[in-house]
Amino acid sequence: MQIALAQLNYIVGDISGNSQLILKQIEKATANGTDLIVFSELSICGYPPLDLLERRAFVESSLAAIEDIATLVPEELGVIIGGPEINSEDEGKLLYNSAFFLNNGKIKNVFRKSLLPTYDIFDEYRYFEPNKDFSILKFKNKKIAVTICEDLWDDQPDEKEFSRSRLYKIHPLEEMMAHGPEAVINIAASPFSAGKHNIKKQIFTDKAKKHALPVIMVNQIGANTELIFEGGSFIASPDGNIYHQLALFENDYYEFDLDDIKSNKNQIIKNNYDRIALIHDALVLGIRDYFIKSGFNKATLGLSGGIDSAVTLALAEKALGNEKIHVLLMPSQYSSNHSIEDSVLMADNLGIKYSIIAIEDIFNLYKDALTPIFQNLPEGTAEENIQSRIRGTLLMALSNKLGNILLNTSNKSETAVGYGTLYGDMAGGLSALGDVYKNDVYKLAKHINLEKEIIPQNIIAKPPSAELKPDQKDSDSLPDYDTLDEILDLYIEKQIVSDQIIEMGYDKTIVNKITRLVNINEYKRYQTPPILRISSKAFGIGRRIPIVGKY
Amino acid sequence: MQIALAQLNYIVGDISGNSQLILKQIEKATANGTDLIVFSELSICGYPPLDLLERRAFVESSLAAIEDIATLVPEELGVIIGGPEINSEDEGKLLYNSAFFLNNGKIKNVFRKSLLPTYDIFDEYRYFEPNKDFSILKFKNKKIAVTICEDLWDDQPDEKEFSRSRLYKIHPLEEMMAHGPEAVINIAASPFSAGKHNIKKQIFTDKAKKHALPVIMVNQIGANTELIFEGGSFIASPDGNIYHQLALFENDYYEFDLDDIKSNKNQIIKNNYDRIALIHDALVLGIRDYFIKSGFNKATLGLSGGIDSAVTLALAEKALGNEKIHVLLMPSQYSSNHSIEDSVLMADNLGIKYSIIAIEDIFNLYKDALTPIFQNLPEGTAEENIQSRIRGTLLMALSNKLGNILLNTSNKSETAVGYGTLYGDMAGGLSALGDVYKNDVYKLAKHINLEKEIIPQNIIAKPPSAELKPDQKDSDSLPDYDTLDEILDLYIEKQIVSDQIIEMGYDKTIVNKITRLVNINEYKRYQTPPILRISSKAFGIGRRIPIVGKY
Repeated sequence: MQIALAQLNYIVGDISGNSQLILKQIEKATANGTDLIVFSELSICGYPPLDLLERRAFVESSLAAIEDIATLVPEELGVIIGGPEINSEDEGKLLYNSAFFLNNGKIKNVFRKSLLPTYDIFDEYRYFEPNKDFSILKFKNKKIAVTICEDLWDDQPDEKEFSRSRLYKIHPLEEMMAHGPEAVINIAASPFSAGKHNIKKQIFTDKAKKHALPVIMVNQIGANTELIFEGGSFIASPDGNIYHQLALFENDYYEFDLDDIKSNKNQIIKNNYDRIALIHDALVLGIRDYFIKSGFNKATLGLSGGIDSAVTLALAEKALGNEKIHVLLMPSQYSSNHSIEDSVLMADNLGIKYSIIAIEDIFNLYKDALTPIFQNLPEGTAEENIQSRIRGTLLMALSNKLGNILLNTSNKSETAVGYGTLYGDMAGGLSALGDVYKNDVYKLAKHINLEKEIIPQNIIAKPPSAELKPDQKDSDSLPDYDTLDEILDLYIEKQIVSDQIIEMGYDKTIVNKITRLVNINEYKRYQTPPILRISSKAFGIGRRIPIVGKY
Repeated sequence: MQIALAQLNYIVGDISGNSQLILKQIEKATANGTDLIVFSELSICGYPPLDLLERRAFVESSLAAIEDIATLVPEELGVIIGGPEINSEDEGKLLYNSAFFLNNGKIKNVFRKSLLPTYDIFDEYRYFEPNKDFSILKFKNKKIAVTICEDLWDDQPDEKEFSRSRLYKIHPLEEMMAHGPEAVINIAASPFSAGKHNIKKQIFTDKAKKHALPVIMVNQIGANTELIFEGGSFIASPDGNIYHQLALFENDYYEFDLDDIKSNKNQIIKNNYDRIALIHDALVLGIRDYFIKSGFNKATLGLSGGIDSAVTLALAEKALGNEKIHVLLMPSQYSSNHSIEDSVLMADNLGIKYSIIAIEDIFNLYKDALTPIFQNLPEGTAEENIQSRIRGTLLMALSNKLGNILLNTSNKSETAVGYGTLYGDMAGGLSALGDVYKNDVYKLAKHINLEKEIIPQNIIAKPPSAELKPDQKDSDSLPDYDTLDEILDLYIEKQIVSDQIIEMGYDKTIVNKITRLVNINEYKRYQTPPILRISSKAFGIGRRIPIVGKY
């Protein structure tokens, strides 16, 4: 049996556009004489469709599109497409998350998702009823277990301190084994996170080995707002190796003979991706898709002379091209001499248009206007924030006038401790680095400079500073970034509380200060732009911490 | 059997504070010779605890606090407290949402929630395993079915076009009836929405009548960030009437003899609350608790001379008192003559401190600074937004310097269509009116003025305008608010798509324009402050629409 895997980039909600993408691949498979072509989870409507699933017309249009596609499927070809299905029973959630099997002009079978991830960024139980019927596909004398993403994640690794590997009471593949499948297909929409790419493969190769069956996983690629999907669809052979893997972060199409997998002609694939290279490629795709899928293609950002805006600019240039970017340099009386020079050099390195607007006069006018209220109160955070908000206002003015979306340049370390100004440097349509700790920002800079110096060495070498008052350094008010990032990782990703972090040997005063800063700044993070997610716990929809509370 | 209902205002995460509140009521009940005292759902940790439930130490502290409370409970008294419980089985979610029965120094029984709401603002399946064991409480020769909130909502009314009344396959009370309960207790954390208050009572009185049993519902009061809980705990008698209802929006404590309910001495309670009065009281509580529970007590806002900021100010004054508020009046060259006069009159009516800062000079300086980039491009949205962002910057400067939280003044109609400036008038720590349509803002103004004129008539009578360019009116770019609000209600609350709204008789051009504006402004709403929720579908965590997508 010739099976084709179609790894595509869908747009959420764009049912007709997604149908066209799918039909093109079906035409190719038909021409090739392929037996079965497989598309990813909810491919008809894009993943995640979120509350669009609560609109009857949206679900009905998805179903109609699948029926339309079916009419074009010949007798020789089987097609597996993901889409929402209406639950016809009187009770339970209204929908199933289903894999539709199309053949010879019709929807012939439907296989429904049993395990509905409802944690972190996933809310599938919000929409879907879990399946409890474990039939399998019989087509061209083959028996195939059709599963959907999480269905094979019943034994998932514990990721944080307070979690468990057996989140589910049902084990779909065990149930399906009773029917004697000869292969397992898994249609997925499995988002990228830097630590998870290898774990994913481990989970599937373990399943393949345990049941001595080929496991074929088809993922989508592309980014939908904050979620990035890396593709990397693969075929695990019955001995627990990877037979073939599709491209990362790119559309791909791969056809193979199922008997080749079963006869165990393994092409063992290397698994050792460089973590920073993966993050880099993920962020570039994340930026590109945010712009393209929103119908925009031009960006702006503020280049401060610091590492965060430099790395953001380099990523944006990769994603959009240098002609689509216009940056602002906005020095104040507190900017260091090098800030402008370094920024100009960086922009010139990439051939990027820049404008310089000094903010001192506007800043002074604000201060004058506020004198009657502030009287003789000493200068402090209020004045620092005014500078940052002047820059935000200028960047947004450029964005509004020229149609360039403002890219936010904040990193995860500063976002975590609230070291940023709402409506100032926290502004933007999309945050490129909001899930990247400061130390990883430095590593990204090194990676970007691998072939030639794009980010000037001076930007990498200088001590981090917000430059909002004389001689200010990040280290004046924060511990060194090595310590900060370690503690933040324990508190945010691993969800370990302060007392336990202190028990692990970290300084009590520092730990308590940092975790307190994280807690009291939930209100700020609530108003940040969507953050491209590259870790197992990003700020945003996957992390829901009360703003008002005492903890 | 003497039963006491304790309706209290808990702080999310404040386990020791909540314990103290609970212990005080237990002392009272002990002194009164009460048999059973009932607290609301997850009372030990506050509702909703969100992802704090993913921290082991948080769950263990909650459990330890309940054990500590138990040691103080005498032999004569039974206590029902809500809290998270660890699921000791190997599989399934880590926690249960449980009702702990305490008596004679110990936790004697635990009853677990079966129906876990996972829709709109609710994400309970994210944390909890559903209960499947339907035992009941036996205490002092009474048999009582102990249920938790949603457990009695198995037949809930359809709220939107594409929903269903039987969301669950399990019907807890039906299961419990096998044990012959003599009464039903329901501990709840049931948030306010204006249309739902009467529906809640209907659901419970229907259950009472169906099973000919008293149903006792204990809700919490108070607001936690965007969610407002109205209290209004009540006792439904076996004939389907309300025997007694506790206070709305206030702490309350009520003790009664269970036999009085069973013998059917009904005190039928009126059910016809004025919708606008309920919304008013809810918003006042919402503002007050946001400030108090965050440890702040001072507010600022920008008073524009329009209806939205006037109503927000009146609500804030009720919530915090006039001495805790400092407003800014920030006229530009486009402000009407009356804007300042009306605003001053309004502030004076309430005895509120105000400062006036004209923004024209700052605005001109921004325009000068941007001339090299903007060249001769005509003035437009960019310049309008600069004015709004200058005001946002001034308000935030006051907030930063004096420690006054900025209250946002946007209403739901303008938030829906994106008629507002990010980082400008969309700034703030909390949005008071972001779930109130413009027409209801007018009704609130009328309600506020019922006894005496607080909001000057001129503010109510003038045509709405953003005053960001000469002679601007909202009606220049939006349909009249009656039409707008109706279409928005159909699209947002009822989740009916454009084509169907047009079929209902609305103008096609207007409907398509409005729904398109709603769709393309998801990115703006993503960055708004938390919005006090008073409807069945507020912007915020309960409404999850893709930002990037095509729909």
